[in-house]
Amino acid sequence: MEAPFVDWLLARLPRDPRLEVPPGDDAAVLRPPAGRRTVVTVDLLTEGVDFLLGGDTTPERVGHKALAVNLSDLAAMGARPEAAVVAVALPRLSAAAIGAGLYAGLAPLAARFGVTIAGGDTNTWDGPLVISVTAIGSVPPGAAWRRDGARPGDLLVVTGACGGSLLGRHLDVEPRCREALEIAARFPVHAAIDISDGLSLDLARMMHASAARGIVDLSRVPIHPDAVRRSRLDADGTSPLDHALSDGEDFELLLALPPAAALALVIDPPIGLMPVIFGEVTAGEGLVARSADGTIEPLQPRGWLHDGT
Amino acid sequence: MEAPFVDWLLARLPRDPRLEVPPGDDAAVLRPPAGRRTVVTVDLLTEGVDFLLGGDTTPERVGHKALAVNLSDLAAMGARPEAAVVAVALPRLSAAAIGAGLYAGLAPLAARFGVTIAGGDTNTWDGPLVISVTAIGSVPPGAAWRRDGARPGDLLVVTGACGGSLLGRHLDVEPRCREALEIAARFPVHAAIDISDGLSLDLARMMHASAARGIVDLSRVPIHPDAVRRSRLDADGTSPLDHALSDGEDFELLLALPPAAALALVIDPPIGLMPVIFGEVTAGEGLVARSADGTIEPLQPRGWLHDGT
Repeated sequence: MEAPFVDWLLARLPRDPRLEVPPGDDAAVLRPPAGRRTVVTVDLLTEGVDFLLGGDTTPERVGHKALAVNLSDLAAMGARPEAAVVAVALPRLSAAAIGAGLYAGLAPLAARFGVTIAGGDTNTWDGPLVISVTAIGSVPPGAAWRRDGARPGDLLVVTGACGGSLLGRHLDVEPRCREALEIAARFPVHAAIDISDGLSLDLARMMHASAARGIVDLSRVPIHPDAVRRSRLDADGTSPLDHALSDGEDFELLLALPPAAALALVIDPPIGLMPVIFGEVTAGEGLVARSADGTIEPLQPRGWLHDGT
Repeated sequence: MEAPFVDWLLARLPRDPRLEVPPGDDAAVLRPPAGRRTVVTVDLLTEGVDFLLGGDTTPERVGHKALAVNLSDLAAMGARPEAAVVAVALPRLSAAAIGAGLYAGLAPLAARFGVTIAGGDTNTWDGPLVISVTAIGSVPPGAAWRRDGARPGDLLVVTGACGGSLLGRHLDVEPRCREALEIAARFPVHAAIDISDGLSLDLARMMHASAARGIVDLSRVPIHPDAVRRSRLDADGTSPLDHALSDGEDFELLLALPPAAALALVIDPPIGLMPVIFGEVTAGEGLVARSADGTIEPLQPRGWLHDGT
């Protein structure tokens, strides 16, 4: 990439006391918080698969989302965000404008969540936009939320309503980082995962990893207004509940907690959060759906399975 | 990406005691080495710019290179490699084969340098191959080699011969990690940078950052046999020395050290290394070339300036 653009970027990055060597050298040097573990995750977004630039889909929103989905992964580990590095392949013809737009979307989110941009790699090419963000967080030893810790008897909580995110919400991801840290401080969470691919699909992953069965109370699944809108717009017979169970890109957290903790969480949640108990964990495997009358039947996990599998 | 391929990958990753939570969850959790800083760097390679798949350019070699260039950045900081995360966008039609090939190239290099693969993101799309590697290393506090510490009086050392890497060597990058750690343990290095874009260009960057002038002894620049070959093959009047000064992708280290340390390094180098003193640092700015007869003239830094600038 042209040196002027990189210089422009470097000059904009806020100073951060966690950086012993700031971006601009061969690598950045971070002062890791004492006595904590390092949490690391990476997500790469490609134009044409994850977004289509144009109209409302601006580089700003793509930049925001690229960082936000990584912060959501940190939230799903109960981790505190610390740093991120950003690698991009920019379409040659409008490289500087797109690069500046990505940064304009990334930077405010990073500032809000205390993330220092510790480096990057800016490339141009003749292909579509690609952005890869690696986020680094921290947790106390042994405290990271895993997806394999759900136990029979746990209740299942989701931190917000689901479905229909493709109507626009999927670009304006608000990662549940602060809420996750408050929940981690107050409650014994046995397992957690964020909803990237669909409530039922991500819950199935948690149950598979935990070697347990998830019971979903269909009448308690929180349905987002966008799921209702999408059901009406598509008019293909997919119900709002189906959208809530399978659309994905909600980036709410799925949690498995002991009953007393789950009840305390929904009665006195972190400010602004509306968590809902929507099911429970039992011995067994897979998912089942429980209707309001108590009928139980198998629930096929559905969601965004990348690449048509 | 198809779950079977990701499962195949996850099953192949060696266990590592540094991983408190291994790949496969929302994020990995690393035990950082006590009392050390975290070093982080990212490089993204795109097909068509950094490599062209086909012929000798196999996915294995691309996988190797993608990790190797990041390890070279860690070496240039005097850092010990610890972990890496790998994000890819694979061409849809041969995604699994290319993905497996990349892994086959990455994994042995990671094993040789003690790098744990802590996670990744595997995508498929209709575009060309993109691979982004984020490498994490560690250094003692205050010990990272920066590029801005060269001082007048320092001698300039390069760890090996340069030029002509595009004849093939550029894919088989052997990062100078072990050598860097030995040098860091034995000598006071004032500044370091790895040669990715060209000896003269990367030296100019070090001098600019250090607010000093670099004198290059033209008769002492170590010229790789590939630079001689390329000069003959191209027959465009570019001399082997010009190739050594400007080709780039050598991934040798440029070091600035006090004279006694530089002399001790070249007299008793790490095993297998043939470092050469090829110049010195003075007050001023920019680069000058000194001929064998002592004549001094300005030296225009040249090299791989990304994107034709």
